[in-house]
Amino acid sequence: MEILKNFFVLEGLDGSGTTTQGKLLNEKITHSVFTHEPTNGKIGQLARQVLKNEYPTTPLALAHIFAADRSEHLFAKDGIVNQCQSGLKVICDRYFFSSVAYQSLEVDFDLVCQINNQFPLPQILFFIDTPVEVCLQRISSRNESEIFDKKNLQEKVLTNYLKILDRFQNQGMQIIKIDGTQTVEQILAEELQYLI
Amino acid sequence: MEILKNFFVLEGLDGSGTTTQGKLLNEKITHSVFTHEPTNGKIGQLARQVLKNEYPTTPLALAHIFAADRSEHLFAKDGIVNQCQSGLKVICDRYFFSSVAYQSLEVDFDLVCQINNQFPLPQILFFIDTPVEVCLQRISSRNESEIFDKKNLQEKVLTNYLKILDRFQNQGMQIIKIDGTQTVEQILAEELQYLI
Repeated sequence: MEILKNFFVLEGLDGSGTTTQGKLLNEKITHSVFTHEPTNGKIGQLARQVLKNEYPTTPLALAHIFAADRSEHLFAKDGIVNQCQSGLKVICDRYFFSSVAYQSLEVDFDLVCQINNQFPLPQILFFIDTPVEVCLQRISSRNESEIFDKKNLQEKVLTNYLKILDRFQNQGMQIIKIDGTQTVEQILAEELQYLI
Repeated sequence: MEILKNFFVLEGLDGSGTTTQGKLLNEKITHSVFTHEPTNGKIGQLARQVLKNEYPTTPLALAHIFAADRSEHLFAKDGIVNQCQSGLKVICDRYFFSSVAYQSLEVDFDLVCQINNQFPLPQILFFIDTPVEVCLQRISSRNESEIFDKKNLQEKVLTNYLKILDRFQNQGMQIIKIDGTQTVEQILAEELQYLI
């Protein structure tokens, strides 16, 4: 898989702090843009409806919906690939590693990898390693409930994340694991070392 | 790829007569059901919006939208797989061979095959071989226009169909090519030989 220069991805469990960090990074870095998956486009909205159980479908269908959303996000005219190639730094909250970690709870791990194997790797993947308990506490205060919220599920998601990160060791993408129990500022400072 | 018993697929160019034949077969066969792709579900509707250019997206996104729709169509609780396994004969107008034939106009042929390689093969695939000119004449009277209607495109689609059918020779699925210039009744009679 190809490396996409200027493409930076934040990954971690729900509640790990990826969104906060992505927005802060975007403020600190010049000539950058912040984005996220699922996107706010029509396909991304459909993914959210499935996650909120407003539109029940099969796990494999959800994996393909995410891949469809990602295809548009990357390869549309104003998409990530063209942005990165024009020199813009694209900071993305979640990417296909999330798909693998979450969708493989119900779909074969290798099949989810295969469904996503046509997408480029980011230049750097920041994995914010925040304990499940901390994540769940943060989520519980959000007043939202998605289908992947429960504790045993989150522990499986973490296992899947470690498995997919391990699989992508030594493939040219920098993988930076960050201790998510640090303060927001400490985490940000650690990330910025690699970006400036 | 696995063969799904009791699953019968009709394929052919747009205008080749697959829908007419599917509905007639369903009337003639006992204990059967007629269905089609894209489905009438939310994901299938999104695919139709893309085809009608009401929702522009990337070709790869469309390939995944079709695969998502297909996943739901097959593996939902009341989906094709369970129907076939309960002894119902499922007659489906278009399946992943259509995806390969049409999506590979813009996405790498092998990638479209790969995106669909987790779906079972039908027991019989009927390919209604109707000349491009005849198909286009029928379509032109429909008052509809989709993004794949033009002649040179349809010729490429036909080439892709022949390529994908060739690839699935000798994989346990029966492939029946039918001369689509025959009358509706003749085509139906030919299909019924294999089904009754």
